Formats: sequence, structure tokens, C-alpha cells
Amino acid sequence: MPKVRIAGFGVSQDGFSAGPNQSLENPLGVGGPKMFGWFFPTQTFRAMHGGEGGTTGVDNDFAHRAMDGFGAFILGRNMFGPVRGPWPDEEWKGWWGDNPPYHAPIFVLTHHARDPIVMQGGTTFYFVTGGIHEALRLAKEAAGEKDVKIGGGVSTVQQYLKAGLVDSIHLAVVPEFLGQGEALFQDIDLPALGFAVTEKVVTDAATHLVLEKK
Amino acid sequence: MPKVRIAGFGVSQDGFSAGPNQSLENPLGVGGPKMFGWFFPTQTFRAMHGGEGGTTGVDNDFAHRAMDGFGAFILGRNMFGPVRGPWPDEEWKGWWGDNPPYHAPIFVLTHHARDPIVMQGGTTFYFVTGGIHEALRLAKEAAGEKDVKIGGGVSTVQQYLKAGLVDSIHLAVVPEFLGQGEALFQDIDLPALGFAVTEKVVTDAATHLVLEKK
Repeated sequence: MPKVRIAGFGVSQDGFSAGPNQSLENPLGVGGPKMFGWFFPTQTFRAMHGGEGGTTGVDNDFAHRAMDGFGAFILGRNMFGPVRGPWPDEEWKGWWGDNPPYHAPIFVLTHHARDPIVMQGGTTFYFVTGGIHEALRLAKEAAGEKDVKIGGGVSTVQQYLKAGLVDSIHLAVVPEFLGQGEALFQDIDLPALGFAVTEKVVTDAATHLVLEKK
Repeated sequence: MPKVRIAGFGVSQDGFSAGPNQSLENPLGVGGPKMFGWFFPTQTFRAMHGGEGGTTGVDNDFAHRAMDGFGAFILGRNMFGPVRGPWPDEEWKGWWGDNPPYHAPIFVLTHHARDPIVMQGGTTFYFVTGGIHEALRLAKEAAGEKDVKIGGGVSTVQQYLKAGLVDSIHLAVVPEFLGQGEALFQDIDLPALGFAVTEKVVTDAATHLVLEKK
């Protein structure tokens, strides 16, 4: 059975998955890139952006698992971009350039309708105004036999978790303290939601934890 | 210079240092003992309670550092016991039996005055109604050249952190999710308070992180 997965989701030791004050200059919020210290050096990340080299090993294995095998992605509006409110024009097409590293349909949660955007490399952005259940229905339909990834950000991940719609979570806990930002575990009771840790692997850059529904 | 230290402080992956619903039966709250999975098996913990054997190695080294070399301890009222409000009598003398494992003066923060209690083995409980600064002044005076430990619980630790009175923190991050309880990092911005990670050692049972003022 295809799964709904959160994967490669970075979180600081003090529980933040993004820094404060997200903006065009700081898409991950101030300090947010620290959450990806385990990810940026990997072969997987470099290849995603057309680069060569990069590390192999545990961090790369988890990076690969966090990007590969998904038939569709769901992103929150704020993860798609810094634009808030109604779309002023058709200019903004995501943070990822003409050929985004998803290569699959992306369903963007928004309150403001917009026509789909076909990008290079198989990525199409669809804008869903019908809420998280509607987005998941569309994503599952598009994904077929493959998994659906809830890509982020924090608010989107929390909404899907609270609704009981997520099967598997991979967190990369980084040895950093952000102090402020978006608190991943705020009002999220993972044991009460039925999750238990099924995998734990530690590297210098992160503690990789996989949680699955019991 | 003697330091004011938090040490051996367990925290779950989702940021809780104690479970909910502390009571006589659950002094650490429901699920709270999971925060001490790294600590209970150690030689240090066993010796504290008159036992023999126990593990040696990294967890034990941190356990030892977390209990040894302190000239005084400060505890919150709720860490001293489950009694709330005015003391009904002189019955309650802490969780730790006749010979508590502190062997030093303990300053208990409370709103309700009470005479000191002299226990066996060098531990005396003093009850301080003058607030955290007063308790720290008394603890430093008692500790002389030795360090003062802010023993807990979460509220006490947070008050001392926010007041900028702590020099060093050792956290034992355990690979557990509590889901609810006392959130250690709630409104605590460690980088803004001047802390940076100076030590990180990982064992099967915990990620030991030491943070010091920069």
C-alpha cells in the first residue's frame, strides 16, 4: 500500500523546524538552513541541483529516501513561496528554478486559486483551495502506486499529523539550537497519534529517527 | 570560579523534560522515567542508592559529572514533592528517603516557610521564600568553591535560565517522544541567552549536549 510520508524533515534540538522571519532572502527563516546541515553536503542534494560529488553514507541514504519514490508532493503555501494573500500575478513559480527537484505533481495548499504551472522535468504545481483532505485525495490519485510526501512547512505537516493522515515520519534532529522559529512539536502528541520510533541512526550531522504508526 | 550548572537534565526528542500529571505515584509525571533511561543503569545512579554494579562508559561519565562536585543544590517545590500549597505538617521530607543522594545543602524554592530538615549523610533541606535570586545567593554561600546545581524541575530551570543566572547546561536528549508534559524549551531561547554547544557525545541511550555561555 502506498504511504503518506513526512521525510527528511529537519528539526533543531529545541524543536524548531524553521527559523523566524521567513522572507525572499531567508526562505527557511533566519537560521533555518542549519536544519539542513546533514542534507546539503550529500550526493543526493547535489544531484538534485545538477551538481556532482557530495557525501555518501548514512546521511545520503536518508536524503535519498526522503526524495525518491514519491508520486506526488503536498506543500503549504508558505513553503511554495514568500507571497502572501491573493496572487498579484503569475510571476512566482517556487524557489526551485525552471526545473524543480520534485519531478512529480506538487499540490500547493492555498486559499487563492491559480492555474497550474507546468515546469521542466515533470514537475507541475497545482493549487488546491479545497483543504488538506482534498489535496491528499488529489495527490494519492496522482501518485498511483507510489507514496505521497507531505513536504512542509511546519504548519502543513502539523495539520496532516493532527488529522491522522500520516503513516511515516523521518526526522533529522540536528545538534543545533535555534531558540525561536516554528515549533514542530507544539500541540503535536506523536505517541497519542499512534507513532513509535522504529529506526534510529546517529551521524555527526544528525540523529535520524523514523516513526511509524503502530 | 564556581559555576551555576544544570546537569544530567533529560529531555525527550519532542522537548519534554517531565511527563504530565505529576503525583505521589508518578513523581516524574506519566512517562517521565523515560527521560532517565540513560541514567538509571549507570554505576553512578546505583551507587547513589547504595547499590553495586551498573554501567560504566560515557553515560556513566555524564551521570557522575551531573552529581559530583556540587556544594549546594536548588530545587523547585514540585521537585521536592507532590504537596502543594501550605505545608499541612512536617511529614513530607522529599522523595529520597532518610539519606538523600545529594550530601549537601538543598535550597527548596517555596512560597510557604518551613524549618530546615536535617537528613542523614550531609543533606539538609532549607526552604527559601525569598525567590530565585535569594536562593542562589544562599546556595553560592553554602557551596563556597564548589559549583551550584539547579536541580529542577522544568519551571525552576526555566526561571534561572531566563534570569541569565546559569553558566553551563548538560542535556541528555533521549530517543523518546513523550507527546505531552513540561516543555523545556518553551519561551527559552538558548542562543539569545548566549549559549552555544561545546560538547556533543552520542550513546545508544542519549545524545549528551553541553552548552556553555559564549
